[in-house]
Amino acid sequence: MKKTIGWGIMATGTIANKFCDGLKHLEDAEIVAVASRSLDKAQAFSRKYGIRKAYGSYEELVRDPEVDIVYIATPHNLHFAGTMLCLEAGKAVLCEKPFALNAREAEKLIKYARDKKLFLMEAMWTRFLPAVVKVREWLKQGLIGEVRCLKADFGFRCEWNPKGRLLNIELAGGALMDVGIYTVSFASMIYGTQPNTIKSLAHMGETGVDEQCAMLFGYEGGQIASLGAAVRTEMKNDALIFGTEGMIHIPEFWCAKSATLHLASGREEAFGPEMKGNGYNYEAAEAMRCLREGKLESDIMPLDETLAIMHTMDTIRAQWGLKYPGEN
Amino acid sequence: MKKTIGWGIMATGTIANKFCDGLKHLEDAEIVAVASRSLDKAQAFSRKYGIRKAYGSYEELVRDPEVDIVYIATPHNLHFAGTMLCLEAGKAVLCEKPFALNAREAEKLIKYARDKKLFLMEAMWTRFLPAVVKVREWLKQGLIGEVRCLKADFGFRCEWNPKGRLLNIELAGGALMDVGIYTVSFASMIYGTQPNTIKSLAHMGETGVDEQCAMLFGYEGGQIASLGAAVRTEMKNDALIFGTEGMIHIPEFWCAKSATLHLASGREEAFGPEMKGNGYNYEAAEAMRCLREGKLESDIMPLDETLAIMHTMDTIRAQWGLKYPGEN
Repeated sequence: MKKTIGWGIMATGTIANKFCDGLKHLEDAEIVAVASRSLDKAQAFSRKYGIRKAYGSYEELVRDPEVDIVYIATPHNLHFAGTMLCLEAGKAVLCEKPFALNAREAEKLIKYARDKKLFLMEAMWTRFLPAVVKVREWLKQGLIGEVRCLKADFGFRCEWNPKGRLLNIELAGGALMDVGIYTVSFASMIYGTQPNTIKSLAHMGETGVDEQCAMLFGYEGGQIASLGAAVRTEMKNDALIFGTEGMIHIPEFWCAKSATLHLASGREEAFGPEMKGNGYNYEAAEAMRCLREGKLESDIMPLDETLAIMHTMDTIRAQWGLKYPGEN
Repeated sequence: MKKTIGWGIMATGTIANKFCDGLKHLEDAEIVAVASRSLDKAQAFSRKYGIRKAYGSYEELVRDPEVDIVYIATPHNLHFAGTMLCLEAGKAVLCEKPFALNAREAEKLIKYARDKKLFLMEAMWTRFLPAVVKVREWLKQGLIGEVRCLKADFGFRCEWNPKGRLLNIELAGGALMDVGIYTVSFASMIYGTQPNTIKSLAHMGETGVDEQCAMLFGYEGGQIASLGAAVRTEMKNDALIFGTEGMIHIPEFWCAKSATLHLASGREEAFGPEMKGNGYNYEAAEAMRCLREGKLESDIMPLDETLAIMHTMDTIRAQWGLKYPGEN
């Protein structure tokens, strides 16, 4: 593989902007091309980021031989089609979370990528942030003893726009899919497995999607995760991990800049390094490391776990009777 | 009623000590007598607090004509018998939370007190703390808009003692009854009603009681409460109330000394007054105010709500199959 890795950007929304802001901090990355279904939008985006090529279709993007890996930044409901388009063209893919609408879609993508021996990864950027890496180290060292309970919330209040992606059922809107996924994935990371009991509640708004939701996960050893998400209520978006010997607090865990350790022994430790870039660069760096090493998936965000998380998400939505158009 | 109100203290454990420490700050209260099933313990307690009379039985306490009101500080499983003994002797009662083992017991006590026209109140002291009074004012003023979600936890790590009141099923142990009650009562106070949907999880320990539990409450209007409790895991014991226009944070809510208001408008307000006494005096003052005014119950902690909370507690325990000896 050539020294510089060529990125293609599929779609030009907020998250695509953030991701490209992050990529600028990686010397061995080049954003080769951007594509939108609107050529105007692609061109405006390419000017903003100094990208050489702008395409008015995703098909052109995946045919570009300079593109080594595509970052999928489309609305949730288009993740499957976008990712499959890339894989069929032989491109590696970093796809925004949630990875797909449901486990069925996720399974197809994973199988296809494995069959074709193509790199594929869910863009759960939180896991690659230095503060979260440190939290995993603290846990591995057993500093807080046996983990008994995790709490994590992610909620914000969006404008009332029933057509927008957050509230529109056609675009797979709702709190769980947009921000709840961070809490579900975090629980999966902390416990290293999926819950064997799931209890949940949702407030379904006028547009038929969950505007607020809460989940309780129970695990084999009696551990609990208590998670919450909202798109019409601002919450305190912290994660707290409670163990038998202490606790870990991660303010704004989904974009964690710091973490603190509070031990029963009285020891306290704060971790808050100066961060490189806006944080999105860390997941991009992981994808690039894997590509250079010829790895087909990341050990930090492996595909079996991505699929397991989608199964958990499916179970939660089934409890509310929330189906997206096209699901049966 | 005479100027000074005479208190009788039933039982001499930790909470009785805290309550008497609080009572010292009320000029118009006198601790007239203390009773324990051990005369030695009663006498030691009476010396500590300068109490004139110490009894080796509860029967003597409730026959003492100088006792206007009895504070019940026995283990949970003895609340019913202790309260009924007092009521039968014509005494007013302030009974520790949880008010009784279950709604059936609570209902009998409430009916009996009402029939006999005797004052009766659950000692949910949190409600009477100045910071919590201020929170109710903020909510009444609608400062955070429509409340959408409440989160509250109360967990600590006790020593492993299977015979002690916290883990012993004979003594109605477990996290829900000991500290979960604070979170359930707080949700009742915030929403002014009981949930119409309850989902919960518990980790039942070796002794058959819940060492850790988590509850989700859903309300008519889609509001949610997410609560947690533990007796073998220290938690961050905060309450957070999320509304459409802002949030309220109450650190260590169960013994709240302060509260902060964070509005979407940017306005922030912190409330943290100098407190009188250790906080237990406020609930005692409320009971005394009611006695002086001839009221049979408190408007802040009314008996219908105490009963409704016990029904909610029953529903939660039923989900876990947790029954205490003597329940059927």
